[in-house]
Amino acid sequence: MSNKIRAIVAGATGYSGVELIKLLLRHSHIELVGAFASRTAETQPLSTVHPQLMGLTHLQCQPYDEKVVSLLDAQLVFLGTPNEFSNEVVPGLIQAGATVVDLSGAWRLKDASLYPKFYGFESHNPKLLQQAVYGLTEFAHDQLRNAKLIANPGCYPTTIQIPLIPLIRAGMIDLSQTIICDSKSGVSGAGKAPNAGTHFVEVSESFKAYNVFKHRHAPEIAQGLGLEFSPSKLIFTPHLLPINRGILSTIYVRLQPGVTREAIHNVWQETFAGKPFVRLFTGSQLPEIKFAANTPFCDIGCVVSENQAVIISAEDNLLKGAASQALQNANVALGFDEREGILHLS
Amino acid sequence: MSNKIRAIVAGATGYSGVELIKLLLRHSHIELVGAFASRTAETQPLSTVHPQLMGLTHLQCQPYDEKVVSLLDAQLVFLGTPNEFSNEVVPGLIQAGATVVDLSGAWRLKDASLYPKFYGFESHNPKLLQQAVYGLTEFAHDQLRNAKLIANPGCYPTTIQIPLIPLIRAGMIDLSQTIICDSKSGVSGAGKAPNAGTHFVEVSESFKAYNVFKHRHAPEIAQGLGLEFSPSKLIFTPHLLPINRGILSTIYVRLQPGVTREAIHNVWQETFAGKPFVRLFTGSQLPEIKFAANTPFCDIGCVVSENQAVIISAEDNLLKGAASQALQNANVALGFDEREGILHLS
Amino acid sequence: MSNKIRAIVAGATGYSGVELIKLLLRHSHIELVGAFASRTAETQPLSTVHPQLMGLTHLQCQPYDEKVVSLLDAQLVFLGTPNEFSNEVVPGLIQAGATVVDLSGAWRLKDASLYPKFYGFESHNPKLLQQAVYGLTEFAHDQLRNAKLIANPGCYPTTIQIPLIPLIRAGMIDLSQTIICDSKSGVSGAGKAPNAGTHFVEVSESFKAYNVFKHRHAPEIAQGLGLEFSPSKLIFTPHLLPINRGILSTIYVRLQPGVTREAIHNVWQETFAGKPFVRLFTGSQLPEIKFAANTPFCDIGCVVSENQAVIISAEDNLLKGAASQALQNANVALGFDEREGILHLS
Amino acid sequence: MSNKIRAIVAGATGYSGVELIKLLLRHSHIELVGAFASRTAETQPLSTVHPQLMGLTHLQCQPYDEKVVSLLDAQLVFLGTPNEFSNEVVPGLIQAGATVVDLSGAWRLKDASLYPKFYGFESHNPKLLQQAVYGLTEFAHDQLRNAKLIANPGCYPTTIQIPLIPLIRAGMIDLSQTIICDSKSGVSGAGKAPNAGTHFVEVSESFKAYNVFKHRHAPEIAQGLGLEFSPSKLIFTPHLLPINRGILSTIYVRLQPGVTREAIHNVWQETFAGKPFVRLFTGSQLPEIKFAANTPFCDIGCVVSENQAVIISAEDNLLKGAASQALQNANVALGFDEREGILHLS
Repeated sequence: MSNKIRAIVAGATGYSGVELIKLLLRHSHIELVGAFASRTAETQPLSTVHPQLMGLTHLQCQPYDEKVVSLLDAQLVFLGTPNEFSNEVVPGLIQAGATVVDLSGAWRLKDASLYPKFYGFESHNPKLLQQAVYGLTEFAHDQLRNAKLIANPGCYPTTIQIPLIPLIRAGMIDLSQTIICDSKSGVSGAGKAPNAGTHFVEVSESFKAYNVFKHRHAPEIAQGLGLEFSPSKLIFTPHLLPINRGILSTIYVRLQPGVTREAIHNVWQETFAGKPFVRLFTGSQLPEIKFAANTPFCDIGCVVSENQAVIISAEDNLLKGAASQALQNANVALGFDEREGILHLS
Repeated sequence: MSNKIRAIVAGATGYSGVELIKLLLRHSHIELVGAFASRTAETQPLSTVHPQLMGLTHLQCQPYDEKVVSLLDAQLVFLGTPNEFSNEVVPGLIQAGATVVDLSGAWRLKDASLYPKFYGFESHNPKLLQQAVYGLTEFAHDQLRNAKLIANPGCYPTTIQIPLIPLIRAGMIDLSQTIICDSKSGVSGAGKAPNAGTHFVEVSESFKAYNVFKHRHAPEIAQGLGLEFSPSKLIFTPHLLPINRGILSTIYVRLQPGVTREAIHNVWQETFAGKPFVRLFTGSQLPEIKFAANTPFCDIGCVVSENQAVIISAEDNLLKGAASQALQNANVALGFDEREGILHLS
Repeated sequence: MSNKIRAIVAGATGYSGVELIKLLLRHSHIELVGAFASRTAETQPLSTVHPQLMGLTHLQCQPYDEKVVSLLDAQLVFLGTPNEFSNEVVPGLIQAGATVVDLSGAWRLKDASLYPKFYGFESHNPKLLQQAVYGLTEFAHDQLRNAKLIANPGCYPTTIQIPLIPLIRAGMIDLSQTIICDSKSGVSGAGKAPNAGTHFVEVSESFKAYNVFKHRHAPEIAQGLGLEFSPSKLIFTPHLLPINRGILSTIYVRLQPGVTREAIHNVWQETFAGKPFVRLFTGSQLPEIKFAANTPFCDIGCVVSENQAVIISAEDNLLKGAASQALQNANVALGFDEREGILHLS
Repeated sequence: MSNKIRAIVAGATGYSGVELIKLLLRHSHIELVGAFASRTAETQPLSTVHPQLMGLTHLQCQPYDEKVVSLLDAQLVFLGTPNEFSNEVVPGLIQAGATVVDLSGAWRLKDASLYPKFYGFESHNPKLLQQAVYGLTEFAHDQLRNAKLIANPGCYPTTIQIPLIPLIRAGMIDLSQTIICDSKSGVSGAGKAPNAGTHFVEVSESFKAYNVFKHRHAPEIAQGLGLEFSPSKLIFTPHLLPINRGILSTIYVRLQPGVTREAIHNVWQETFAGKPFVRLFTGSQLPEIKFAANTPFCDIGCVVSENQAVIISAEDNLLKGAASQALQNANVALGFDEREGILHLS
C-alpha cells in the first residue's frame, strides 16, 4: 500500500486546475486521488473534460462534495475554485483536518475590511484569515512548514513582490516616489468562463488596460510590500495580452542615491541563493514571456539609468503564478523537496 | 433634400453588421438612416456599441422594430440577423415594399425540406424561398436587377462556387470523382456570441475541424454547383483558424483528360472579365488570406499535376463573404455601379 | 488633363509605404505617379510586390532614382525609407523643388548632436534640420502651410505627445515627478526586414520590453513635450506586442493639486475641437488597440485617482503613426481638406 | 561513476534541438554530455542560447566537431541538423561507433534517386541509406532494436502514416481513389532561420498553402504507405498556420464497401494496443491541435459518411513530429522503456 499523501484538486476544470493535475501526476510523494469540479453536476473522466490528459490519467472528475474528501481520506486539498466558493468551503476543510492550498484570493488579504470592496463578499472567518499563510514561497518557508491553510498569491502580485521585496528590505528604493507597476497578462488569467472580454476576436490583434486603479491585486501587492494602499505610493495597472499564458511586469522605481544595477543584482543574488524558482537576468538579456512560459520560474532583471530603475519580471501565470507555486507551497508545508513534481530530480 | 436610397442595417451589433455600416457610410447613393440590433433592448449610439465607429457616425442603434422601417421611409434593408430571425421577418419587410438583402442562411436553399435538418426550423414561406435571388453576384447580375429579396451567399460557399462554377460549366471537371473542399475560416465567422468555442485560450495556438459531414453550408455548395448532395460527390470540411478574419479553401478536383492549368486560367479569365471583385492568381504566387483580408475580393488560383488540380481561393469572410457582397448585390439590384461604396471610383 | 498634384512614394515595399499607396489611390486631388523601392534593383508591378493591391493599381515599383522625380514632374514625395537614406536624399529633393514628407527619423530632432548617438550617423544638413516642420499635425497647422520639408513624427511619440502636450501647456502636470510612458507596439513597427526579433515563433505567445532607456524615440518625445532629456524627467519603455499593428501607451503622470478627470477632459476637448483625427474617450470605456487599428485616429482617455493620472492612448502605428499622418500633413501643406483621402467626405 | 548512456545533441540551437535537450535532462538512463551547434562558431552556455533553459543545465553549446564525440565518449548522437549536413556527417559518426538518430530528411528515402530532386543533393552513401531504419516507432520496434542509424520521420508524414498504415494493411481503403492529405503546421516547422516567410507580420492573421505538389514529405509519405508516388494515388498539401507548434492533418479516403467507423476504430485499437504514444478519439470529440500540442502523442480520429472517411490526426511537430519520437526511437534501440524521459514513470 502506498505511503503517499493523498490529494484532491477542486476546480479541476479550470486552467490552473489542469496544470496542477499535470504536476501532481509526476509527484513521487503525493498521489492525486480526486478531482472536483465546483460548478458542474456530472461525473465524467478528466480526460473527457481535458482531452490533453488522455493517456495520462483515468481519474474521474466529480461535482464538489466535502464528504468525498473524507471518504477518499485526502490529507491535502488544492482549491482552484472561485473566490466566493473558497471563502465558503475552507473552514470546513480545515476542520476536517485537511491541509488546504487555496489558489483563489479569498484568504490572501489580512485586512478583512477590504473584501466587500474588492471581492464583493464578507470574509467568512476573519480569525482564520489571520492564520492563513501567504504563500509567496521564497519569503515564507518558515511559516509554511506545517501550515494548515495556505493562501496562494495572485499571479500579478507574485511578479511584483519577488523583485521588490528584497530591494525594499535593503532600503534601496526611494519610497517617497510612486512605484509604478505596469503589468501585462495572457488571457488564461481571466479564467475559462466565456464572455465578451475573452472572445477571440475581441482579444486577438488587440491590447488594453483594464480595472485601472481598481484591480483586486493592488491591495494584495501593497500588503506584500508593506506599503500603505494609496495611488501616491503604488500604482498597479493590469493589461490584457493576446496570448494564452504568461505575465510580464514592467516596474518603475526611483532608487536611493548611489544604488547601482550591480547593487541590485547583489541583493537579489543573496536573497535568492538556494531558491530554485527565481532566475536572475544579470546580463544584457532581460526577461521575456517566452523564456518563462511553460516553466515554474519567476524571472527578474533590471536596467538602471541615473537614479531610475526599470525592473522587468516574467512568469507563467498558471505555474509560478498559480499551480506550481501551490505545489511548491504544499511541498514545503509537508516537508518535501520544494522541487518535487515541478523539476526533474536526478 | 437628398435623393439617396434610404437604408437600414439590422444586426448592427454583429461583425458583418459593422462592416456593412462602414461601407454604407462611404456610399454616394445610399444613406444609412437606421441601425437595428436584433437582440438588445436599449437604444444607444452606434459608436458606443462599436467604438471604432467614433468620429464616423452619430447614428443610434435601436432594438429591431419593423414599424420603424416605414417610419424612416427605408427602401433597403440589410439583415445581418440570426437565421431564424430572418426567416420570420423577411416576408413582412417584403410586403412593406422594402428591398431586402438577407445575410443569413434562411433564404438560400431552394429545397425547403433541408431547413429542419440543417437550420432547425421550417422555412416560413417556401414560395418566397423560390423567388429569392441567390446573390453570388458574379453569376447573378440578371436576376439581381430589381430583385426584392436577395439571399446573400454563405462565406464558405462563396470561396468554393466562384472558382468551381466556371470549370463545371466548361465540362473540365471529372464529376465521377469526389470533389474535396477543405476550408479554413477565421473566428469572426462564428459570430460575436461568446462561448467555449470562441474563448481566446481555446482557439489561440490551436486549430480544428468542426461539423465534419454536417455543416449547413454543404447543401448550399452542392446546390450552387448543381451537384447531388452526397459525400461521394462533394465533401466540405470547415476548420477554425486562430485569426480574426479570412477564409482560405483548398479544393481538390480531378480534371478531364487534357485539361491544363492554362485552360483553367482561360476559362476563369473569360468568366471574370469585367468582374471587379474576383482576382486571378495566374503566376507562381497563390492566394493567401493576408492578400484578401480587409479587401472585397475573392482571390483564386490553381496548381495542376497530371490530371489533378488543387484550387486555392481566399476572401475576407466579413466582406466578400458577407458585407461587401451584400452591398455589391444591392448596387446591382438598384442599378448602381457594382463598386459603389466598396472601391474608390475616381 | 489632370490638375492633380503628382506624387511619388519612395519606400513602397515597406509596411508604411503600402498604406500610403492605398490612401493616395483614394485621394481626389493627388495622383500617385510613381513608386520607388529604396533597396531593390528590379522594376516590377506594385501588385506583385503587394498582392493585396491587385485590382487597385497598375503602377510599377522601380528602384529609387532621383532623376525620375523630375521626369515624372512630381511635386510631392513621401519618403518611407530608412533613416540614413532619408538623411542623404532629402536635400537634393528639396533643391529640385519637391515638397517632401519624410516618414523616417532623419529630420525630426532639432538637436543635431543627438543623431550620432541615436541614429548612428551625422545629420547631413543641420541648417535644413532647423527648417524641417515636425508634423504632429494637430499642433502644427500654421507651420505646415506651404512647408517644403515635413518630418513626420515617430509612431510612439505621436501617442504620447497628443495627450500630454495640452496638459503640460495648461500647467496641469507636476513636472517634478517623472513621467512614465509604458508603450506597446505591434510588430509592423519593427519594419519588414526579417530577423530573429521578428520571427513568428520568437514573437507569438511572447512579450518583451526592448531598448530600455535607449530608444531613439525618447529624445523625440522629450523635445515634443519641451522637457529636458533625462530619466528623472521622462522614461519611455517600448514593448513588442504579438500583433501586426497598433500601439497603446500607458502614461503615468502626477497632477497638480486639484486637477480632476473632468478638467483634463475639458482641456482635451478645447484643444481637439475641429481636429478630426483625435478621439476622446470620456466615459467608462478606455482606448484599446482594436478600436484604433485600421483607422487614422489617435484615441485618448484617462483615469484619475487622488493626484495620479493614468492616461491611455492608442493608434494604428502604420496610419496615425505613419502613413495617414503623412497624408494629413501633405493635405495641410498643400491647402486641401485635412481629411482628403483619409476619411470619406460626403 | 555513472552507468548512463552518454549522448550528444547536434543542432542544439534549433527548435527540435532544445526540445530534445529538455527531454534528455529528465532521462534516467541517458546523460546529455554535449550540445553542438552546426552553424555557429562560438562556445557559449546553452542557457544563453535558450534562456528558457536557465536553471536546468550548465552545459555549454559548442561548434560541431566530430572529434569531440570521441573525446566525450558519446555512444548516442542526435542530429537536429540541416539535411545536407546530416547527409555529410552520418557515415563518419557510424564508423566511430555511435548510434545515430537523425532528425533531418537525409536518410529517410530508400530511393536514392529522389534526393537530387527533393533535397538538392546526392545521397552520400546509398548503401547506408538502405540500412537506415525509418523510425516511425509504432511500426518499427523490431528493426529499431540495436539499430545504428535511425532516420526519424518527418513531422507531416508521422501524422499521415500513423492512421493510414493500419487501414491500408487491413485492406479497408479503396486505393483506386486518390488519397487527399490536407495538412496544416505551425511555424516552428519552418525552422529558426528568419526569412520573409517566417516574419511575424507575414504569418499572423494569415494562412497559406505552400509547395503544392512538390513538398519533400510527399515521396516520404508514399514510401511509408507503400503507394506509387503519383498525384493520382496521393496528394499532400502542406499549409502554414499562424501558431508556434502543432500539426493537424485532414485526410480524405474512400473506404471499401461496408467499412464502418467502428471497423476503423477496431483496427486502430488492435494496432495501437500497448503503444503509449497514439491516442484514439473514438467519441464525438475529434483531435485538435491544442490537445496534442506540448505532448508526445499522435492523436487520431475519424468520421465516416457513406463510403467516405475524413480522418483527423494531430501532434506536436516538435515532439511526436521530431524530438520525442527521436527519443522514443533511441529508447527502443537501446532497450529502455519506450516512455523513458518522455512520460513520467511511477
